[in-house]
Amino acid sequence: MTDRPQQFASDNYAGICPEAWAALARANQGSQPAYGEDIWTTRAADGLRSLFGADCEVFFVFNGTAANSLALASLCQSYHSVICAAAAHVETDECGAPEFFSNGSKLLVAPAPDGKLTPQAIRDLATSRSDIHFPKPRVVTITQPTETGLVYSIEEIRAIATVCRSLGLKLHMDGARFAHACAALGCEPADITWRAGVDVLCFGGTKNGMGVGEAVIYFDTALAEDFAYRCKQAGQLASKMRFLSAPWIGMLESGAWLRNALHANACAQKLAAAVAATEGLDLIFAVEANAVFIAAPDAVLDGLRARGWRFYTFIGGGARFMFAWDADPAVIDALTGDLQDLAAGQNLPAPAAKLAAVSG
Amino acid sequence: MTDRPQQFASDNYAGICPEAWAALARANQGSQPAYGEDIWTTRAADGLRSLFGADCEVFFVFNGTAANSLALASLCQSYHSVICAAAAHVETDECGAPEFFSNGSKLLVAPAPDGKLTPQAIRDLATSRSDIHFPKPRVVTITQPTETGLVYSIEEIRAIATVCRSLGLKLHMDGARFAHACAALGCEPADITWRAGVDVLCFGGTKNGMGVGEAVIYFDTALAEDFAYRCKQAGQLASKMRFLSAPWIGMLESGAWLRNALHANACAQKLAAAVAATEGLDLIFAVEANAVFIAAPDAVLDGLRARGWRFYTFIGGGARFMFAWDADPAVIDALTGDLQDLAAGQNLPAPAAKLAAVSG
Amino acid sequence: MTDRPQQFASDNYAGICPEAWAALARANQGSQPAYGEDIWTTRAADGLRSLFGADCEVFFVFNGTAANSLALASLCQSYHSVICAAAAHVETDECGAPEFFSNGSKLLVAPAPDGKLTPQAIRDLATSRSDIHFPKPRVVTITQPTETGLVYSIEEIRAIATVCRSLGLKLHMDGARFAHACAALGCEPADITWRAGVDVLCFGGTKNGMGVGEAVIYFDTALAEDFAYRCKQAGQLASKMRFLSAPWIGMLESGAWLRNALHANACAQKLAAAVAATEGLDLIFAVEANAVFIAAPDAVLDGLRARGWRFYTFIGGGARFMFAWDADPAVIDALTGDLQDLAAGQNLPAPAAKLAAVSG
Amino acid sequence: MTDRPQQFASDNYAGICPEAWAALARANQGSQPAYGEDIWTTRAADGLRSLFGADCEVFFVFNGTAANSLALASLCQSYHSVICAAAAHVETDECGAPEFFSNGSKLLVAPAPDGKLTPQAIRDLATSRSDIHFPKPRVVTITQPTETGLVYSIEEIRAIATVCRSLGLKLHMDGARFAHACAALGCEPADITWRAGVDVLCFGGTKNGMGVGEAVIYFDTALAEDFAYRCKQAGQLASKMRFLSAPWIGMLESGAWLRNALHANACAQKLAAAVAATEGLDLIFAVEANAVFIAAPDAVLDGLRARGWRFYTFIGGGARFMFAWDADPAVIDALTGDLQDLAAGQNLPAPAAKLAAVSG
Repeated sequence: MTDRPQQFASDNYAGICPEAWAALARANQGSQPAYGEDIWTTRAADGLRSLFGADCEVFFVFNGTAANSLALASLCQSYHSVICAAAAHVETDECGAPEFFSNGSKLLVAPAPDGKLTPQAIRDLATSRSDIHFPKPRVVTITQPTETGLVYSIEEIRAIATVCRSLGLKLHMDGARFAHACAALGCEPADITWRAGVDVLCFGGTKNGMGVGEAVIYFDTALAEDFAYRCKQAGQLASKMRFLSAPWIGMLESGAWLRNALHANACAQKLAAAVAATEGLDLIFAVEANAVFIAAPDAVLDGLRARGWRFYTFIGGGARFMFAWDADPAVIDALTGDLQDLAAGQNLPAPAAKLAAVSG
Repeated sequence: MTDRPQQFASDNYAGICPEAWAALARANQGSQPAYGEDIWTTRAADGLRSLFGADCEVFFVFNGTAANSLALASLCQSYHSVICAAAAHVETDECGAPEFFSNGSKLLVAPAPDGKLTPQAIRDLATSRSDIHFPKPRVVTITQPTETGLVYSIEEIRAIATVCRSLGLKLHMDGARFAHACAALGCEPADITWRAGVDVLCFGGTKNGMGVGEAVIYFDTALAEDFAYRCKQAGQLASKMRFLSAPWIGMLESGAWLRNALHANACAQKLAAAVAATEGLDLIFAVEANAVFIAAPDAVLDGLRARGWRFYTFIGGGARFMFAWDADPAVIDALTGDLQDLAAGQNLPAPAAKLAAVSG
Repeated sequence: MTDRPQQFASDNYAGICPEAWAALARANQGSQPAYGEDIWTTRAADGLRSLFGADCEVFFVFNGTAANSLALASLCQSYHSVICAAAAHVETDECGAPEFFSNGSKLLVAPAPDGKLTPQAIRDLATSRSDIHFPKPRVVTITQPTETGLVYSIEEIRAIATVCRSLGLKLHMDGARFAHACAALGCEPADITWRAGVDVLCFGGTKNGMGVGEAVIYFDTALAEDFAYRCKQAGQLASKMRFLSAPWIGMLESGAWLRNALHANACAQKLAAAVAATEGLDLIFAVEANAVFIAAPDAVLDGLRARGWRFYTFIGGGARFMFAWDADPAVIDALTGDLQDLAAGQNLPAPAAKLAAVSG
Repeated sequence: MTDRPQQFASDNYAGICPEAWAALARANQGSQPAYGEDIWTTRAADGLRSLFGADCEVFFVFNGTAANSLALASLCQSYHSVICAAAAHVETDECGAPEFFSNGSKLLVAPAPDGKLTPQAIRDLATSRSDIHFPKPRVVTITQPTETGLVYSIEEIRAIATVCRSLGLKLHMDGARFAHACAALGCEPADITWRAGVDVLCFGGTKNGMGVGEAVIYFDTALAEDFAYRCKQAGQLASKMRFLSAPWIGMLESGAWLRNALHANACAQKLAAAVAATEGLDLIFAVEANAVFIAAPDAVLDGLRARGWRFYTFIGGGARFMFAWDADPAVIDALTGDLQDLAAGQNLPAPAAKLAAVSG
């Protein structure tokens, strides 16, 4: 139980869920051709096509950094640019990976106080300049759910896609926690992707319960031309590909992909309810997926740390707690208890700003 | 048993060996910090340091393409060049990955008829030009064992390192099958790496029995400065790092890393002996590690294919058979039987060239 | 005289000044070795060494985009970052060139309301994060004079260099209009470069009166290692180098480099004085070099355009006028007349913000 | 006259020809908009369109390294490859520039003993592999005239273009000395470019008598999409563009572009005739443009050097002499005299190989 106080620091602190593990074990039988010509990779890709109800192109890569960077690079040239929110992971936490993979495509940061891009912000930025000294906008990337834990509605995505179409921009979705968005909206995966106008989705497997791996899914299959070569050159073609693809089979065929997300979201709701009911604490962002951002006096945060809780404060300034497939409700209760305990010891008013601006 | 005829096509057709699998299972317990701050990654790195008897810097990345490309990129700038043999994997089978990761470092191909670089060939190429229109040589990369299945002796590596030192070149070793070289030479890993003058080694885990993952090992630790950032930016930092690193623990602590290689090498010897004893067949290269290259009449190769055997012919023109940790001696017997059978049906003389030149 | 109304739109609308032209003509005699091994290039480099009183390394490249991008790329790796002001040309007007040349180094934008970086802003940004997901800061770039027409004092540069040293950052100066800064400060070129702690300077020749060409000057010569190869690979090594280098001889030996800048600065002062004395007009930034930014009602700006004046409004929202070596005082009088005329027709109050914030 | 013995070392040792100089002087009048929006750039581009009789897209860049590298980069992605001859300048003398600009596109070297690619060599290489580990061929580049001084006939280019079309490859022409090919063939520029199937031409201005600058000409204008952004980002957009473009006007409108080339070719013929008539000397390649490669005993080459002649020996092993627009027939006579003199002092037989193989 020693790892419990740290288990909500990130949803990639969790291990491999049983369904993914079982699929790995099944795939680890005998010899299989390398580089994706095995039976498991075909079955996993078909499973994703079935999930989305679309004849999409599917590629399995190692991690989210590569998935998003390769996808963006495939949508623009080095002298083009990518519009994103200030809080976008590709902007803030990838050590320049998108620029590296694209050989220099610039990320243009649109104002997005709560982490969500809006059609207006996209339009304003995309049309702000048209001279040759400014990298030509070609792609919009949205994170679903956002890094702030918010979920774009179907209508919001459609509106963004509409403005993208009108401006000649491609629409990419960073779905590191895509399953959590589907779980939150109760919609079909197609509803917030190709049916809404998304061209390419990076579907996160790791935060959904796998050990390693993301799927890059092209709904506009023409955009996927030669993408396999791009993956190979960029060090993202697994030789024993079955171990990247098979876990997807386990996740999809068992329904764990959605079940895990529902559980994680429910855990977030559980903590959010407790925070909302506690004097002196506040939620920084609405809790819509598996993240909870808590505004609390410094003394409370310090107290949490002193009691062993590990959490990050890099977005919005408050404490972020993330829930994975294995989040333990009993540990949430313990965290809630500590929060209430610490907040009660404070005579300070709640922090003023309920909805903090997100700075890049 | 349906996969048997294909199991010698490549040593990455094999699955995960039991020792690596057990380590994965052990590591899949509870929460662990991400990005390498877990207990398993530290232990795996320490295990490698212990194996090499050196205080080296260790990084775990996803595959060999990335390991070699990142290592080479760390040793030179884009306007520098890398000297390699014509048959070097980095030159022939990486779809331009070294050039991509380094942003343009050119590979200079030295003559190496059997796949092995020589000090003289390195010197000749490195000193052939010194003008600014020619990318300045900065690194030599050797593959140990070579793509042709040969093993550099300790003395050969020392001699190459000596010429590198004298010319101001760094020495990189592509050790996709490094364990097989150690097994073949019966030496300490240190003997053919840092003690012989190698600066950086890419130690292959995948072909040694793991599912995914290679270790980049800097013996000259100054060269590893900020390499973790390089990995991150290039999409090679695993969030759930423990699943990349833990298998190394299983391999090292159990001795499987060497046992697997000894087995694979022995399988190659078994096939080689049969080939040498068969009229009409010949070995293209000496069999020193886990690869066997067979020169045979086209009719024999066609006959093998017709009987379901899968193999590659891209090096030397003959049939390559590779043996992994799980190579089944009974299947070797079956292959040998088919070879003898097919060769006996031929009245053709053995192919003229015993030692074919390798073209890039 | 048809081109007069446009001559203040930019200081690169001017032609080649007589001194640079004469030097070109002198250099265009007979054969000369290519790629910088000619007599003129040596003499030009020596001239710059003499001007700076330093044994610096000098490279002549084609334009400012390349000069700054190559210099920055030489100071960091792709996973490092460069701190700059929001208004920095490298950030706003280079179409991603710094990212392209460096293969992905991210520009980190520090708050700089008037276009000038401060030691505090640098320190805050450089120390804001130290995790591997954030590209490690390695370079600070300042523009002297700034894109807003301000000039860093000797003390300001020293203070910035001090904070750079303390944080392990290199200091680069974009001196597209470096001569204008020297003219404004009345100092030695050394005073605001190497004596103040600048590692690398890009000294602009084009805006100083040449037709093409900038000099990249390394005061820390160790940083210049293999820079000639970098230039060659990046398409910045002129074959007939004498035509890039000779104009510098003309500029330096005649004193035109400083004379041109003094004239341009004086023209800016002349316009600034008129603006300051005109009801309804205001200066957005202090006028310290050769740029004048005028806050005026839209009707005034429209009126100027209607009378044929060409100017840009991309910084600070007002009208920017730039003066080159050939700026004609009579045309300034004409412009002043039009400004006063148009302003007099307005009953609007002066624009509220005298010192507008600069947004990237 | 001190520079005479070196004037044939390269055709970029020459200065600016009178027609280009006069155009520069004319363009250096008053203010002009920057970045190509001036009157001279439009006129120069129109001049080239007129010369080629085609509505092509024209871009002016600084040098051949950039022209060829940018053009190739525009025709392929980083994971594609470019087929070239072993002697191709892009392969042997650009310090990795094509790989840098394209972010890793590999050059595939086809056998071309005399420096000329053949349809068969292109087909063999392009179809040699189709697996993902091999960068997919997308472009063929030919140098016209070749680095060996040979000129592709109209029919040869057509045949190459035909094979390119059939294989889905684009055809690029490195025309560093394009004028010399036109002069040699006595054909229209269109005959060996768009009419023969060339997609993109890099037309060299420098070696034709200008001081700096090349034109990148897209006959397939769809391929030129956003190329101006590519130039900008790569540091190849001149601010005072008129000084890059105006010389083209001088060259084209006066006919100097062809006259210069005819003169240079005639000079080469003059020397070639003398060599052919001299016992002990031989031509390594046929003399078809402005280069002469002489096979001679080492003692002769040493003797030439001792008498002050400067020449290169990097292609074919013999002495290369190149003729520019300003080549002086009297100096050719002096060279011829020295050659005959030195050869007469030899009792050695002529070198065996008349047509030496070109190695990359």
